[in-house]
Amino acid sequence: MTLPKSIATVCLSGSLPDKLEAAALAGFQGVEIFENDLLTFDGSPAEVGRLCADLGLAVTIYQPFRDFEAMPEPQRRRNLDRAERKFDTMQALGTGLILVCSNTQPATLPEPERAAADLHAMAERAAARSLRVGFEALAWGRRTSLWREAWEIVRLAGHPALGLILDSFHTLARGDDLAGLEAVPAEKLFFLQLADAPRLSMDVLSWSRHFRVFPGQGELPVGAFLRDVLRAGYRGPISLEVFNDEFRAAPVRRIARDALRSLILLDDEVRDAAPAAAVPAAALPPAARLAGIEFLEFAVDHASRQALGGMLGTLGFHHAGLHRSKAVELHRQGGVNLVLNAEADSAASERFEMFGPTVCAMALRVDDPARALARAQALLSPAWQERIGEGEHRIPAIRAPDGTLVYLVRTGSDIWSDDFALGAAPAPAVPPFSGIDHVVQALAPGHLDGFVLFWRAVFGLGADPIWELPDPFGIVRSRTLSAADRSLRLPFNVSESRQTTTGRFVSAYAGAGEHHIAFATPDVAAAARPAAPMLDIPENYYDDLAARFDLGEAELSALRRRRLLYDRDAEGSFVHAYTHAFQDRFFFELVERRGGYDQYGAPNAAVRMAAQTRQRRR
Amino acid sequence: MTLPKSIATVCLSGSLPDKLEAAALAGFQGVEIFENDLLTFDGSPAEVGRLCADLGLAVTIYQPFRDFEAMPEPQRRRNLDRAERKFDTMQALGTGLILVCSNTQPATLPEPERAAADLHAMAERAAARSLRVGFEALAWGRRTSLWREAWEIVRLAGHPALGLILDSFHTLARGDDLAGLEAVPAEKLFFLQLADAPRLSMDVLSWSRHFRVFPGQGELPVGAFLRDVLRAGYRGPISLEVFNDEFRAAPVRRIARDALRSLILLDDEVRDAAPAAAVPAAALPPAARLAGIEFLEFAVDHASRQALGGMLGTLGFHHAGLHRSKAVELHRQGGVNLVLNAEADSAASERFEMFGPTVCAMALRVDDPARALARAQALLSPAWQERIGEGEHRIPAIRAPDGTLVYLVRTGSDIWSDDFALGAAPAPAVPPFSGIDHVVQALAPGHLDGFVLFWRAVFGLGADPIWELPDPFGIVRSRTLSAADRSLRLPFNVSESRQTTTGRFVSAYAGAGEHHIAFATPDVAAAARPAAPMLDIPENYYDDLAARFDLGEAELSALRRRRLLYDRDAEGSFVHAYTHAFQDRFFFELVERRGGYDQYGAPNAAVRMAAQTRQRRR
Repeated sequence: MTLPKSIATVCLSGSLPDKLEAAALAGFQGVEIFENDLLTFDGSPAEVGRLCADLGLAVTIYQPFRDFEAMPEPQRRRNLDRAERKFDTMQALGTGLILVCSNTQPATLPEPERAAADLHAMAERAAARSLRVGFEALAWGRRTSLWREAWEIVRLAGHPALGLILDSFHTLARGDDLAGLEAVPAEKLFFLQLADAPRLSMDVLSWSRHFRVFPGQGELPVGAFLRDVLRAGYRGPISLEVFNDEFRAAPVRRIARDALRSLILLDDEVRDAAPAAAVPAAALPPAARLAGIEFLEFAVDHASRQALGGMLGTLGFHHAGLHRSKAVELHRQGGVNLVLNAEADSAASERFEMFGPTVCAMALRVDDPARALARAQALLSPAWQERIGEGEHRIPAIRAPDGTLVYLVRTGSDIWSDDFALGAAPAPAVPPFSGIDHVVQALAPGHLDGFVLFWRAVFGLGADPIWELPDPFGIVRSRTLSAADRSLRLPFNVSESRQTTTGRFVSAYAGAGEHHIAFATPDVAAAARPAAPMLDIPENYYDDLAARFDLGEAELSALRRRRLLYDRDAEGSFVHAYTHAFQDRFFFELVERRGGYDQYGAPNAAVRMAAQTRQRRR
Repeated sequence: MTLPKSIATVCLSGSLPDKLEAAALAGFQGVEIFENDLLTFDGSPAEVGRLCADLGLAVTIYQPFRDFEAMPEPQRRRNLDRAERKFDTMQALGTGLILVCSNTQPATLPEPERAAADLHAMAERAAARSLRVGFEALAWGRRTSLWREAWEIVRLAGHPALGLILDSFHTLARGDDLAGLEAVPAEKLFFLQLADAPRLSMDVLSWSRHFRVFPGQGELPVGAFLRDVLRAGYRGPISLEVFNDEFRAAPVRRIARDALRSLILLDDEVRDAAPAAAVPAAALPPAARLAGIEFLEFAVDHASRQALGGMLGTLGFHHAGLHRSKAVELHRQGGVNLVLNAEADSAASERFEMFGPTVCAMALRVDDPARALARAQALLSPAWQERIGEGEHRIPAIRAPDGTLVYLVRTGSDIWSDDFALGAAPAPAVPPFSGIDHVVQALAPGHLDGFVLFWRAVFGLGADPIWELPDPFGIVRSRTLSAADRSLRLPFNVSESRQTTTGRFVSAYAGAGEHHIAFATPDVAAAARPAAPMLDIPENYYDDLAARFDLGEAELSALRRRRLLYDRDAEGSFVHAYTHAFQDRFFFELVERRGGYDQYGAPNAAVRMAAQTRQRRR
């Protein structure tokens, strides 16, 4: 890794020692001490400094010092006194830099010269103690809200102990960029704070205080921003300052790991702009070239294995093989392999005991499993080892954030013949599936950003914007990650509903790997056979379809007869159908994409959810 | 009640029959059928019509019909075909009115004449079936986004079966009003939708889709809006259309009752503008004149009664009396009465069994208990009757939305002498409390709007804007309801934290009446006696206080010595201190208000919460 990495304590949940320990455990080299975390802590600043030193953490900065510059008297004098007290704190903490953010008070005087004079006075006092002052433009600052304005004041002040602090959110949220930064001497770039955010239409202050995310989780061009800063000669740490309600409510170690993962990825993305003089760190291994899903594995017991096998049979699956040493079956339909694992004392049986029948693993076809594994490890996802029998294939694997195993299978390799006793495939009863179109996973609230980062970083997937789907019991937020060539599509759903006791499907088992698996078929009408337990769709849906789309009578009645759902956009159309849920835990979808349709039939989600609710109540 | 009351099915959670039953049970006279609720229902429109008729509900409108007017061909022709299909649906439902909302499509043509011609054509077809069409301006409509623009198109079209639909949100969210509405003939006002909202800085579409609330729960002038509509001669129903993520995730009957309560209150508020010809309904009894809290009652068992009595003793309370027939004690300090109820087989014991020691009742001093009770009943809060012994006082009571009893005690009356054997008061050890300053209650997410409405409607309290407090494990949102003269102050807190397993206080027992009770004292330094289990405050807090405020050395060291918290605003200052939590269920605060300080020391909340977290971990 090229750049030292730091995190502000305000990003994390819990008490100050919890935060510091989690940052050190994740592997950060430094921390920003956020003032409120210190105020609420019952140890002295010197104790905090010792704790950081014991954990191997540098205190990169103390922040924020608010509403300082360009105040009329007597506040001006009092602010300088206040600064002296904070210098005491900094010396006890063992940090040399304080962040002054631009004044938000209505009383601020307009002249930049006044602001410059005050910052000069503060820098002079800081320098007397060998401390430094960094000035940052808050996007909602009263007189100073752009980095260029902050730089103008720093330049005017002309004190060696005074420099500029940049923050990606404050610049990018304003639609601004760093054009002109090359005119700022590199030694005046004192510190760099990084944050990403989804693009939201709301006031910048609320957006900043609640919805910042780690780089790679949002939609701002943080990489380009960092590249500009590095090209301007910045040599200090990259430090995260993220205010996020969900992160502050989540377990601290998980968020600290996500935080560092985001910086490792970002660091790699901007290697081209890294200073030549910097230690040349090894690049991350490139993300795998993906070629779809080799298999999905379900954790089952003997009874549910039989029931699930029966259900799969109605969709045209056949029992293709039995594992040579374990209670594991392979069911196959065209290009889809589903593994039903009832082996006792395994990772699968652990999942089964916790959650009942559930998806416990997904095998991805990758061009180079060893490289994919090395990338995952470099991004803080360690390899995982399942117990195997003698002579069996060892498939490299990692764990997704919810514990689901992700196996890495070399594209084109045969992983089945050695471990499984395979039978002959019967003549297909229905058109074979071409593969798994997508796998939807329901997440508990607060988990989406972590999953987005994992899949973007480890496998290089791209993230669509967030969709909102109304459902009978609340709102579902959905975000899809997919490979550029769509060889892998993973929508994630988060439900806001709190009615878990109503047996609401999407949230009832969130966090437990609740899934919805879509098979790609060339002919959904033929695939949705009468024997299959397909979800019934209300007649009203077809009346509305007739009103919305210019469908021929024949096409409409074909949809109606087989209870198929329909969507269309400028690129093509989409015909699909759902099965009943299997033991309230997962369900299957049959999808037929026509033309260039690249979505997921979201307008039909409410119809599907209402029908599932009725099915469950029966 | 003056005006017929209706609600859109989209306001409510669940399946369409659930929604209709809840609306009827609450007491609505009509429903708007929202299209998606029909599409996802597996019965025919005629069955929905019969269900409404059986429940005594009129179908006031079918809605919405989107993206209709001013489209180029061939969409224009297709839209008219689509309208015919929806007319079929309306006739089956048994409603005569459809809502057309203004077009949001980029392809919309700009000329109002085109929009008018299309609406005329639709109205002509509707009239052929004795149906009517109402046109509404969406705030984010492409060409038509203000009601005046919609009216201009309706006027141009000049068809008797075409009229205007008004929606308070679409007008008020744009900062617009109804000036000029008197020029619209009353018979052209076809329908009225009402919604309130908190003032949020975000795009109007997201604001509308997720954050609408019922009138009286938000900050928009919905009453003035309705008054204008009535003065313009509108004679139809008032109908709620509220899109709210929390309401859609909440139990449907609770939300339906809140919805009707909001309209009953609103109806009463606009009586002055009601048409003279309308049936003169009885006004609501005026809200009570409040004079503070006569007592708070705690549900305890014998062990916790003893422990709580001991804790109260350290704050200067004395055991003032014993109930003549029940296991109930009165503890008193100055103007504060606390009742400890350990009686078996009572409302209190039920609460104790569910939640452990908890506040189970609050007695308010009111000028006229019978009138207060009648108002509550008219606002859908029925009287509640506790079992009483012979000769005992029967105190009228209602239940707050969480089940807490609210007793109504006549101001100045003596409710104690008959039922309690009272002892003599000892000489006070500390300055007597002047009363209960405020009672804070922690609510589960999704409950705040319901509480706001209850206290505003039943007791006429005013609601402050929402505050956000960061805490160690997330964000707490706080909203205070209070009497204009501050004789009653009730802050409510909602925690967004999901870490209930960490023993987080504010959320751990949300919904179970977790409380924080603040006593008003003239001298908090004397009241926070060394014997009392006061929460310790970190030394860093005082260092920061010294930097923030120009406090004299004597004052600062007095605060520091007694570990008191301090806040100041332009009106005055606030000195306060907290006790440890009692069995992790509630805690007490001692507050001294100086000058006109009218807040709650919010800047100190994070310090308090961090200290409580430490206390719990010990």
